[in-house]
Parts: sequence; structure tokens; C-alpha cells
Amino acid sequence: MASEDVTQHVGTRERVSIQRVRPAVLDGRHPAKAIVGMPIEVRADIVCDSHEVLAAVVRFQAGDAGAWTETPMRHVINDVWTAEVVPEELGTHRFTVEAWVDHVATWRRDLMKKIDADTVEPLDMATGAQLLEALVDRVDEPRRQRLESTIATLNDEKIAVTTKVDVAMSSELAAITGDAAPREHKVRFRHLLEVRVDRARAGFSSWYELFPRSTSTEPGTHGTLRTTIDRLKHVAEMGFDVLYLPPIHPIGVSHRKGRNNSVTAGPEDPGSPWAIGGAEGGHKSIHPELGTMEDFHALVAACGDHGLELALDIAFQCTPDHPYVTEHPEWFKHRPDGTIQYAENPPKKYQDIYPFDFETEDAEGLWKELKSVFDFWIEQGVRIFRVDNPHTKSFPFWEWCIGELTREHPECIFLSEAFTRPKVMYELAMRGFTHSYTYFTWRRYKQEIEAYYTELFQTDVADFFRPNSWPNTPDILTDQLQFGGRPMYVQRLVLAATLTANYGMYGPAFELMWSEARPGAEEYLDNEKYEIKTWDADQPHSLAEMIGLVNRIRHAHPALQQDRTLRFHEIDNDQLLAYSKTDASGEDVILVIVNLDAQWQQSGLTWLDLEALGIAEDATFEVRDLFGGGTFTWHGRSNYVELNPHVTPAHIFHVRAHPRTEHDFDPQ
Amino acid sequence: MASEDVTQHVGTRERVSIQRVRPAVLDGRHPAKAIVGMPIEVRADIVCDSHEVLAAVVRFQAGDAGAWTETPMRHVINDVWTAEVVPEELGTHRFTVEAWVDHVATWRRDLMKKIDADTVEPLDMATGAQLLEALVDRVDEPRRQRLESTIATLNDEKIAVTTKVDVAMSSELAAITGDAAPREHKVRFRHLLEVRVDRARAGFSSWYELFPRSTSTEPGTHGTLRTTIDRLKHVAEMGFDVLYLPPIHPIGVSHRKGRNNSVTAGPEDPGSPWAIGGAEGGHKSIHPELGTMEDFHALVAACGDHGLELALDIAFQCTPDHPYVTEHPEWFKHRPDGTIQYAENPPKKYQDIYPFDFETEDAEGLWKELKSVFDFWIEQGVRIFRVDNPHTKSFPFWEWCIGELTREHPECIFLSEAFTRPKVMYELAMRGFTHSYTYFTWRRYKQEIEAYYTELFQTDVADFFRPNSWPNTPDILTDQLQFGGRPMYVQRLVLAATLTANYGMYGPAFELMWSEARPGAEEYLDNEKYEIKTWDADQPHSLAEMIGLVNRIRHAHPALQQDRTLRFHEIDNDQLLAYSKTDASGEDVILVIVNLDAQWQQSGLTWLDLEALGIAEDATFEVRDLFGGGTFTWHGRSNYVELNPHVTPAHIFHVRAHPRTEHDFDPQ
Repeated sequence: MASEDVTQHVGTRERVSIQRVRPAVLDGRHPAKAIVGMPIEVRADIVCDSHEVLAAVVRFQAGDAGAWTETPMRHVINDVWTAEVVPEELGTHRFTVEAWVDHVATWRRDLMKKIDADTVEPLDMATGAQLLEALVDRVDEPRRQRLESTIATLNDEKIAVTTKVDVAMSSELAAITGDAAPREHKVRFRHLLEVRVDRARAGFSSWYELFPRSTSTEPGTHGTLRTTIDRLKHVAEMGFDVLYLPPIHPIGVSHRKGRNNSVTAGPEDPGSPWAIGGAEGGHKSIHPELGTMEDFHALVAACGDHGLELALDIAFQCTPDHPYVTEHPEWFKHRPDGTIQYAENPPKKYQDIYPFDFETEDAEGLWKELKSVFDFWIEQGVRIFRVDNPHTKSFPFWEWCIGELTREHPECIFLSEAFTRPKVMYELAMRGFTHSYTYFTWRRYKQEIEAYYTELFQTDVADFFRPNSWPNTPDILTDQLQFGGRPMYVQRLVLAATLTANYGMYGPAFELMWSEARPGAEEYLDNEKYEIKTWDADQPHSLAEMIGLVNRIRHAHPALQQDRTLRFHEIDNDQLLAYSKTDASGEDVILVIVNLDAQWQQSGLTWLDLEALGIAEDATFEVRDLFGGGTFTWHGRSNYVELNPHVTPAHIFHVRAHPRTEHDFDPQ
Repeated sequence: MASEDVTQHVGTRERVSIQRVRPAVLDGRHPAKAIVGMPIEVRADIVCDSHEVLAAVVRFQAGDAGAWTETPMRHVINDVWTAEVVPEELGTHRFTVEAWVDHVATWRRDLMKKIDADTVEPLDMATGAQLLEALVDRVDEPRRQRLESTIATLNDEKIAVTTKVDVAMSSELAAITGDAAPREHKVRFRHLLEVRVDRARAGFSSWYELFPRSTSTEPGTHGTLRTTIDRLKHVAEMGFDVLYLPPIHPIGVSHRKGRNNSVTAGPEDPGSPWAIGGAEGGHKSIHPELGTMEDFHALVAACGDHGLELALDIAFQCTPDHPYVTEHPEWFKHRPDGTIQYAENPPKKYQDIYPFDFETEDAEGLWKELKSVFDFWIEQGVRIFRVDNPHTKSFPFWEWCIGELTREHPECIFLSEAFTRPKVMYELAMRGFTHSYTYFTWRRYKQEIEAYYTELFQTDVADFFRPNSWPNTPDILTDQLQFGGRPMYVQRLVLAATLTANYGMYGPAFELMWSEARPGAEEYLDNEKYEIKTWDADQPHSLAEMIGLVNRIRHAHPALQQDRTLRFHEIDNDQLLAYSKTDASGEDVILVIVNLDAQWQQSGLTWLDLEALGIAEDATFEVRDLFGGGTFTWHGRSNYVELNPHVTPAHIFHVRAHPRTEHDFDPQ
């Protein structure tokens, strides 16, 4: 833009150009995302005319009012510069990049070339002395003294050139001159970029969803928040750390849906938890059959005792019985006959649901009230929210609401439940959602899994979009899980839990492999959304132990707590998928190989990306299967793999260049 | 950035989000490039919450003060919207994108779904009538009357629903309501983007470089601007349209370089034309031995008579004898002993060249003087400049200088002669250069040619970088041309002239296949830069006729006057390269197949991208070789090709779905 253009002023001496600074979301329109204590890799394209040596720093400000710190950048290749910054506080931080021509470093580089070519002249020494003169007043003792003595040496005609060269090329001098560089005509990147730093759980978490009303051990009895507490031990033992509950608010009676989403409910039908609002209250109330606010506080505390954190579902929609409908009819769209417009997806009609109208004249009142729902539950101790259908509420609302909430409570985590078009899902993530549901649920073939996760982790999408992979939800039972049997459940568990650092499951249904679907649909038959279930965890076919093993591997291996290090490896069988992850240091290395065929044994030869594994070309190394058991000695890129899905559909290999020691973690 | 953020104001009802509007260079930091009369494809990602129908327009302003015009955008796929805008004037234009929710269109779409499901209700008609009411005051007669009668129909309880549906779904109503949409809560893309529109020759040109001092027919005699006029007929007959001359200014005598770049010149040595400035003057003077300003004007006029346009070389550097050195010593860097710093690339020294110091205290004076050099030659009738080594002058200078010059003279064309790192070359193009030298000169293998031109034409580089491909220059004689013989010359000619719409050659050397190099280097032996040559165009081995044929094909086929339509096609031989181009309408289709092996015959089977060729799957079509002759009937994707480089190293096929007619152009 002309207005940003420094060159409208003739005669600028700023020769450096800084472009494409990353992480940046839409060139700085939105903050990028990071995790506290984890390095942020800042990259920039930096060029200058001619051939002088450049220097560059990342300038980083923690919080709104923190001091600015500087981290030197280094040139990687092809004019790309990089530096790592480790954020130490939650919240929104700012950064930018500065660069300048380093004339002293240029002189030293050219001097080195002349030394090599044996063409050093006395004047080269005088040139250096002149450059150093300009730095003398910029350093404290004893560096000042050191500079002055260097200048004297360079200017002393009686001293041999070889001695002068030694002084000029010393690394000590380089350190002094680098720090003291006058940074004349330095250039700052034209945008101040933002990064939102979330807590560790935003980067690594394992979610378990259950319906509190189905936690009673007594069949046919409405479970409560108190009976939910009884289930925590089991969920925690499986290694989950987030317990996510569907909405716990009063459920409307008007147009209440019956079993299997039938349009008329029987007198005993409890209704869908997402049909929010009744005579007993709305989004800030608890369904009386689930218990009281006191019970809720007890549940929050009990979760903490079990190393679990409670996540609530926030679904901004109302039944016709919701108090908002009478108190704020202006927040809803009205039809010509004066009735409120119910939700429609023509030709389908949802008479039990009134959506909010984000074009209401009182948008300000609506926004503030909706935000106050989060505020209320934050007050009750909740910090994680799964937001239902955020793509049917306006983007600016989310940007404002999540922005305000994370400013006040930077530890909050928001999961976007938007299964819609990719750009809408990305837009929500850019507007502030911490986590996002993904297409994982429907990505089943090797090529589509590789393409999808490459887009998520190896493009600029990774700067703002944190995937949370779910093999099932109360709304989705894929045909894979309907018909694939245990091998498919295990396969999808391993994929969800090792492709992304954040994953979750609609727990009881997954754990007990409830696979019966409404014929022809990818939906549960006798869906728990419309009825109370009894959940007997102690069944012999339960996957609980296997889930527990996978979660223990995830906890023991920092490699699986990362997303961006995911790399796919070649393997010469389209039914076998191979990928690795490392931790930030590259020390912990996990290689996963999955047989995508849930029926037949498959075998193949790998063609490993050894660099990604930190293994030297032609080296012998050890792969130890943390999941199926067994340790193998592999060599080079090509190694044989064979997986019978009925025994185990996956290897989760711990890869090590050196033989194992006694201190190895053994999750089994 | 927070400051751009509309959502800091709680309660906005702007629900649409517009992102990634293209063409855009660094999100609008620099103008994109376009050609007058050629469509600009504007694309944007446009999303909204929920599922309503959107509408979008490109708003385009011709020039600084022109009226804003609107072009409706259409949805392509995956939330990408597009529209074509055709600029009709030269200069810098501005554009942006606006979008809004179209409630009437949403109602019509939903009504259609309800019709299909047979669930239309009377209230649906009343809803439509209510929406149309809001438009009545926004249209003139007779559309107003039409709206009112539609509303009356929809509200009339006595009229059958089927009749109402017919009225509601009429395309005439759609046209009225689309135009009259109130655009409530419309959103405008947050950047105003710029596009610089150049004249047709910037998009399609053929350059021929010659040294005027070598245009005398008398061996050993210094050629002149007048003898250059004698050569124009020959150059024009070969189909070139730009005649580019190395610098024509006085040449310095201090440290003048002798033949073959030797450090001492003999008394007869003429010196390098790039060693600019002597007692006779500098960048605004003409070397006396070449002639006078009157001669120059005669040359400019003669070029025009031959359909040629003169391009001058602007090389901003001075010999020690240049008047600037004494008049403006402050524009140069000084060494500690007071002498001016000559050019160095350690350990190489160029004592005959003083570079300008863009960090001079008088940067403003320097910039203005350098711009005045262009102004001077523009005054003399020049509009095309080849700029020597622009990457050793500061980027902001070019941005300002070219910006000012094209504002005053939008018909000017600037070719960047920067053979350096890719990001520096791109930076110069972004800062304003119309054309850029490329790596074509060194791209020889199939994979590297495909990768390079895919980067240039299929990524955002295409928005700002216009390649001008040269097989040779006075500085570069590749080993391919040294040793490849005639087949290699023809191959490189065809590649340069058909891969890019703009190409050029160091003419006499290419035409006559001067191939003798300094041993071990990719440089001409007895380089014309340091001595006067005699150029006898009438040699039997001359490539002049073949060059003429290629240029005639380029002129006759608009497909070859395009860059972005370049597509590579598969062919199962790594020595065969296949690519096509079409004109903007897709009617003119050229398919080029080149044998990259200059020694042996190669054959292979194509696997054509038929969609790119506009040929239906499984269709029979005609390919007519405009270059080597012959017409073939091809079928489907797979067709046999065989090329003997000693006969012809390339096919330049005109591809046609239908049989040829009598009116076909025949370049032979």
C-alpha cells in the first residue's frame, strides 16, 4: 500500500528488505498460535542489494506491556533467516524482525577472502580501523579498551600484516562488533505480528466424552453429576486428561425429539441435551435431574483429584422454552406471521431449535450475553469449552468473544465443533479457536491421510489451526466402525492418537465398540442424544486396556505431543501407512506403521526418510514396538514390515540410533 | 493487526469474511502487473457463517481519479470466487472486493429446495414478499412496478402456490433483486490492492541486442549510430520488435580494460561500453565515435520506420573519469586514504569502475540525478530500458524511480538484468521492474525447466515477475552453445521463444553461432565487450531464416503471447519436453515438443493434458507443425513423437479440434 511505503520519501538509505515473516496468519491479520515453553520458529526472507553481510534479530514482547527482547537470527539458505523464541507466559505476545547491513562483518568476510587469495593491502587494515572507530563509544569497558587496542594495532605501520590479520579475525572481536553494531539504516518488518501463547494442554490432550445422564449403574435411571464422579477413576485410568460433557442445561419440552430423533417424544423421553432451555432456566442453569451447582463444583473438584479437567459444551441455540425467547425476542428472527423462525436446512425443519440472529439490531446485547455464558462457567471453575456448531454464529462474534475471554483468562481452551467446508473451519481457527475438529473422521486411505496432514502441518495452516482428531462422536459412526470390527477400532484409535497431539473419542461407544447404526446412515442407532444408556465398562471385549496403553505411550513420548514434526515415509504397499514424529529436540523419535486394511495381513518394504528419524545413512538402529511388543534391528531405508490386523493393526516403534539401556520406559 | 480489526467494536453485524484476494503482491505491499486490454482474473476466498447465499463484486478504479466500476464475482469451488476485469488504460489502478449476504437469493434457493421436497408453505411466500418490500424503493420504473406486482401476487391468498412459485423463481426477478440488493452489513476486503497496467509490448516482445560500434561493414572501423541504421532492415526482417543497445556513452580511459578483459588496454582498444564516463561526458552524453544526438534521433526514427523500438542500457556506475566523480565525490565511498573505493568482489578488483554509494548522506541528490538520466533519454524518445546490475543499487531507489517514471510515462518498460539469487530477482520485480532476466540460460534438463516455469507461472510469482528469456548475452556463452552445435542453437531458440512471451538474444553472436569460449569459462573469447567486431550477416550457416520463422509463428499465434497458460504435458522420455500454451480465450492452442538431446534422435509417447488443449477426451484432433512442417492426426492422450535434432529438434504444433480450413495462416 502506498501509505505504508517508506520510499515515497526520496533518498532513504534503508537498503534491506524483510518479507514473509512467519508465523503470520494472513500477513498479521490474526495471531499465530504457540504453546508456552515450546520454541516458536520465526522465519523471514531478508535481502539487500549488493553483497554485504547482513544481521537480523527477532524482537519479541511478552504481553502488552512487557519489555522487548532480541534474539539474533541466522541465515539458513536462499535468503531465509530463522531464530527460535521460547515464550514463557500465556497470552498474546508481539514480535517483529529487524535487519541491517553489518559493515564490520562485511569487512571481515572480505578480508578473509583476500587472505585466502593473498591480496591483503595495508589499506584494508586502515578500513577496518575506521569501521571500529565508530563502535568505540557504543561499548563499555573492558570491551572499549579491547576495541581501542585493536584499532591501534591495525593502524600501527610497524606491526606485521599477519599479526593484524590475527587480531582482525578473532572471534572475540566478532562478538564485540556484533553487539555494538550501530545498525545504521536498519529496517523493521512493516507489520507487528502477534502470537497467542496457550498452555501445555492446548498442545497435548486426550479427550473423553460421556453423557452424565448415562452414568448411573442402575439401568433406566437418570445419571447425575454425582454418578459421573464414580466414572472418573475409570476414565483417568485409561490415561485421558479431559472429560468432556455434552450440555448439562435444562432441556426444552416444546417439539422435544423422541428416541432416534423422532419428531414426537414420549413422556419418558429425556430429550436432546443440545435442545437447551426450559422453565428451569437456560445456559447458566443445570438440568435438575443432573443435580445442583454444588454437585457441579464437586464434579469439577473430583476431576482435579483424578488428573482430569472438565470440558463443557457451549451450544448457542434455544428451545422455544428458553427464557431468552421471552426475555429477548429481538435476538431471534421473526417470520411474517410474528412467530420466531426455527432452524431450517431446507427441506429439513428443526422446530425445537431457535437459532440466534446475528443480524439483530441488538447485536451488542446478544454478544455480551453470550460471552457472559462463558464467564459464568469460568466462574464455576471450567477452563475448557467445546463449542457446538460455531460456524452458524458470526465470525466477528467469535473473534471478539474468544479474544476477550483469553485476554482475561489466557488458560482457556476452545474446541471448534465445525464439520463444514475447509475454509470455514480455518476461518474459525483464525478467529480464535484453540482446537478444531477435523476431517480425520473420514480420512481412511493412505493418500488422503498423507495429503490432509501434510496440509495441516506443513503449510501455513499449522500457524493457526490445531487439529483435534476424533474417530467417532455422538453424531458420527462411520461405516468403517460399523463394519470394521475390532481391528478397525484399534486402527482408528492408533491413527487418531498418534497423527495429532490432541485427540478424543465419544468414549463409552468407542471403548465398548457400539457399532449399530441407523440403516444407511453414519449415525448411531438408538442414539444416546435422545435416550439414557447404561454403560457397563467391565465387558470382556472392552478396548479400555488398549486405549490405556496408547495413552501411556503418548504420555511417555514427547514426540507424540508434537504436531509439526509429523513426516510420512514411503512404504511400497498402499494399505500400509508409515509416519514419524520427533520431539522439538529430535531426541525422542516415534515411527508408526499402520495396516489400513482391517481384514487382511499386509506386508511391505519401507523406504525411510532417515534424516527425519535422526538416523545416519546406512546405520543400524533399533525399533522397539511399544504397542504390539518386540524389538527389531533395522538397517538403512529399506526394512520389512508385516501386520496382521487381527493380531495388531499397528506398530508404534520407538526408534533409537543406539542400543537400549536398562532405564527404558516400558509402558507394558 | 488489532488496529485493522473491526471486531474491537462489539456487535458488528458484518458476517462475511473476505481473504486472500489476488492478484496481490505481499498482501498489497506492491502492485501486481497486468497488460492493457488483457483480462485480470481477480480471485478471493469468501466465507460467511451459516449457509446463506452470498454475493460479491470486484470494485475497480482506473487511475487515481477514475470512477469505481463493479464486476460481479462468481463462486467457483471451495469458497473461491472469481471475476475478470479488463483494464483499458495504462498506469496504476486500484481494486478491492466487496461481499454480502443476499437474503433474497437465499430465500429463492431455499424455496427451490422446498419445491423439490414438496414442503412449500404459504408463509414461505409471505417471507419472500417481505424481503422484496425492502427493495421497492431501490429500483426505478418499470422494475419497481414489477416488484410491486410480484409482492402483490405472493401476498394474495387467492392465488395458487404454484403460480406464486413461478413468479418467485423467474430469472427476471433474480436480475432485479440482484441489482437492487441492499447489501446490508456488506464487507470490504481490508486492503485496497493495486495493479500496474503496462502496454502490450510489455507482455509480448522479441529483443535483439547488438553493439553499434560493430555495425560497420568495414573491418576494423568503428561503427556508428548511422551504420546501425543500416542493420535495422535485417533485424526487422527476422521479426524482432525491440533493438537493444549496450551503453552508448563516452568510455573512460583510466584503468581501461583491453581485449579479453585484460587489465591494460592497448592504444587502439575501445574499452567496455559499461565503463561509463570520460572527458566527453557521462550518462547523458553519446560516445563521440558513435555519433551525435542528431544521429541518435535519426536512429530512433529509423527504428520506428522498421517496426522496431529502441531499448537503451542504463548502467549506473562510473569510471574514474566520469564527471560525477569530480562534481559529486560525496556520491561515492571513500577509503581511509581519501581515494574513492572502486568495485570489488574480493579478491577481484575492478579499478575502472566506481559504484555509487546508496548510503551517501546525499542520497536524495543521488536518486534525483539518477532518475534524471532516465528522464533525459525519455526526452530523446526512448521508452524501453535494460537496467544493468540493478541488484547493486538499493531497492527503495528502484521503487521510487520506476514508480515516478511510470506515473509520468506509463508506457515505459524496464528490464532487470539481475542474474543473482531468486529472492533478490523477485524483490526487484516487486519494486517495479517490468521484465526480468531469468535462469532460463542455465535451465537445460526437463525436470528443471518444468520446475522453474511452474514456479514462475503457476505460483504468486506470476503476479509480479515477467520473465524475459535469453539463450545468450555478451556475458554468457553456456557450454551448451559452446559445444552443442546447430541443433542446440535451434533448441534454445525454440525454448526461449515459446516458453515465455518475452525473449531476446545477443543477436549477431547467436545468429551466426559464435561459439568460441575462453577455455574453461562460459564467456565469449575475444568478447565484443572489449573490441570491435565485424558482423557479416550473409553467411550460409546463419540462423536468421530460422529465427525469422520462429518470430513469425510467435506473431501469428496469440497463444505464444501469453505466459500464464503454459502447461507441461507428460511424455515418457526424459529427453523430450512437451508443453502447451493457449490464448486468453483458449481458441488458439500451441503444443511444443522439444528434443533436449542435441545429438541423438529421441522418441516417446505423450500423455497429454487434453483439458489444457481444449480437446475432448477420446477425440481425434489435428496437430500441424508450424516449425518443422507436416500435419498429423492425433487421438486421445497418447501419441507418438520422434525428433532427430539434426533435422529439427522441435515441433511447434498448432492444435485444432477441427479440420483445417483454407484460411489458415502458413508461416512458411
